[in-house]
Amino acid sequence: MSFDFTVLGSISAQPSVGKYPSAHVLNVHEQFYLIDCGESVQVQLKRYGFNALRINHIFISHLHGDHFYGIYGLISSMSLLGRKTKLCIYAPAPLRQIIDNHINFFEQNLSYTIECIEVDTATSNLIYQNKVLEVYTIPLKHKVPTTGFLFKEKTPALNIYKESITYYNLDIQQINSAKQGSDVTLASGEVVANHRIAFAPYKPRSFAYCSDTAPSKQIVPIIKGVDLLYHESTFLDSDKKIAYATSHSTAKGAAYIAQLAEVKQLLLGHFSMRYKGKVELFEAEGKNNFDACIAVKEGCTYKIKMEK
Amino acid sequence: MSFDFTVLGSISAQPSVGKYPSAHVLNVHEQFYLIDCGESVQVQLKRYGFNALRINHIFISHLHGDHFYGIYGLISSMSLLGRKTKLCIYAPAPLRQIIDNHINFFEQNLSYTIECIEVDTATSNLIYQNKVLEVYTIPLKHKVPTTGFLFKEKTPALNIYKESITYYNLDIQQINSAKQGSDVTLASGEVVANHRIAFAPYKPRSFAYCSDTAPSKQIVPIIKGVDLLYHESTFLDSDKKIAYATSHSTAKGAAYIAQLAEVKQLLLGHFSMRYKGKVELFEAEGKNNFDACIAVKEGCTYKIKMEK
Repeated sequence: MSFDFTVLGSISAQPSVGKYPSAHVLNVHEQFYLIDCGESVQVQLKRYGFNALRINHIFISHLHGDHFYGIYGLISSMSLLGRKTKLCIYAPAPLRQIIDNHINFFEQNLSYTIECIEVDTATSNLIYQNKVLEVYTIPLKHKVPTTGFLFKEKTPALNIYKESITYYNLDIQQINSAKQGSDVTLASGEVVANHRIAFAPYKPRSFAYCSDTAPSKQIVPIIKGVDLLYHESTFLDSDKKIAYATSHSTAKGAAYIAQLAEVKQLLLGHFSMRYKGKVELFEAEGKNNFDACIAVKEGCTYKIKMEK
Repeated sequence: MSFDFTVLGSISAQPSVGKYPSAHVLNVHEQFYLIDCGESVQVQLKRYGFNALRINHIFISHLHGDHFYGIYGLISSMSLLGRKTKLCIYAPAPLRQIIDNHINFFEQNLSYTIECIEVDTATSNLIYQNKVLEVYTIPLKHKVPTTGFLFKEKTPALNIYKESITYYNLDIQQINSAKQGSDVTLASGEVVANHRIAFAPYKPRSFAYCSDTAPSKQIVPIIKGVDLLYHESTFLDSDKKIAYATSHSTAKGAAYIAQLAEVKQLLLGHFSMRYKGKVELFEAEGKNNFDACIAVKEGCTYKIKMEK
């Protein structure tokens, strides 16, 4: 049961040859979620072996081109591929108006429907859930309304030790009770503690995506203790004035937030091309302030291991 | 003085890894014209060494995504690069409404102005000219209003043989008269034929771009005798029924038009990916019907040599 984050694009603003703007795939239990949608996302999906038709939910942080302009080609190609399943797109307003206009001009014969969910960027809210996953927004601080996304595995139902069924001679009712977390009273009147019969199959995992944003202490309680935090670091500390002026973060600033939030692993991305692809500079600055820090590479998958 | 056509993207419909949708640069006397604007055009420009800021005129054949969706990122990046020069975009309606909406949603702080010129797709008209070049539309037959573009070098002013100035002892007035094509009367009364004093520095060159379209005899008089014709050939003759149904051409159909129009060189492009990049199949089918036929390759430049 995967919980994997793959980077399709790692740079900010303008794409370059072999360097793509923000787009990512999160695989949670073999369901694929697209996070941001920079130009060429459809090609990057192909390049790294993802089937666009398996994506039913697209989460877009904000309506800047380097996070959005890939949506047009992707919508078109999904239709050319004969998609029938509804596609849900989550983003700040005026997403619906933009998509409606686009469909009206270019895609009147679309083979599927699109649902636009405009998210509130001022508070953290549950915007999507299924059996195993919840997705919450994270209010970010950028020049335009921007939201991050927190992906949290739900607490799984307890499993039962097979041996305990015969050992305690449990009936269906007792088994179901144990699955709900209750202690079990046997026919003899003996009470067996739940943990002797049932166990959690895995610890729920969590991933937070925070881009684009200035470092914001406001998000710390929301992302507290996540297994994996992607935080933008467009600039290095040597350019912190530009970062401040443009509502972006430095690697140092991102590391500071990771430290405050006590996250287990920090990923840095959304690099300005002014550093000419030298991502090791970001990683070094990040590590200086938060040891569990990696500067992402396009095409790489960062896995959150399942733990019991 | 160049007249060079460079292919940035050669495939139809969906892009793939290393295969880009329609976009081309025409270099006429070191002025750069963009023809169609498929997704990732800004990266393809960089890849092949073109400076986006030197493009002041973009000619778009029709409003299908594989010819248009690159415009958004290009507009944005030109602004990030600090462009000040006006950008002119030529395309069928409702181009202006689409661009206006886009600017309103995404680019309110654009560093330059955009002029949208909506072209009539029913007749051939002069839509742009400068000192050396004229651009005419070519009515095409596609599922949506579509235009091709005919780029014609203007007849250059005559040059004067230097030797003739001293030999005939010509004054300024006589020189200017010869430059206009007139014979010259010397002080002695002798009349010197113009061709003994003046010469055309080069023969005007011409290039026609025809994509997307079903084969159309209607365009033959417009493109008659051009030096270079780019004609779409989305399909092979084995799929002519699909070509017909979708208002596209086969390589054979494109070659037929090239033959009727007696063009000097035919370029085939806009290939369907159903043939898995085997462009030699298109070239073979084209050559079978019109010998001077080449299937384009992305990144290649096709030059029209200057002849006297």
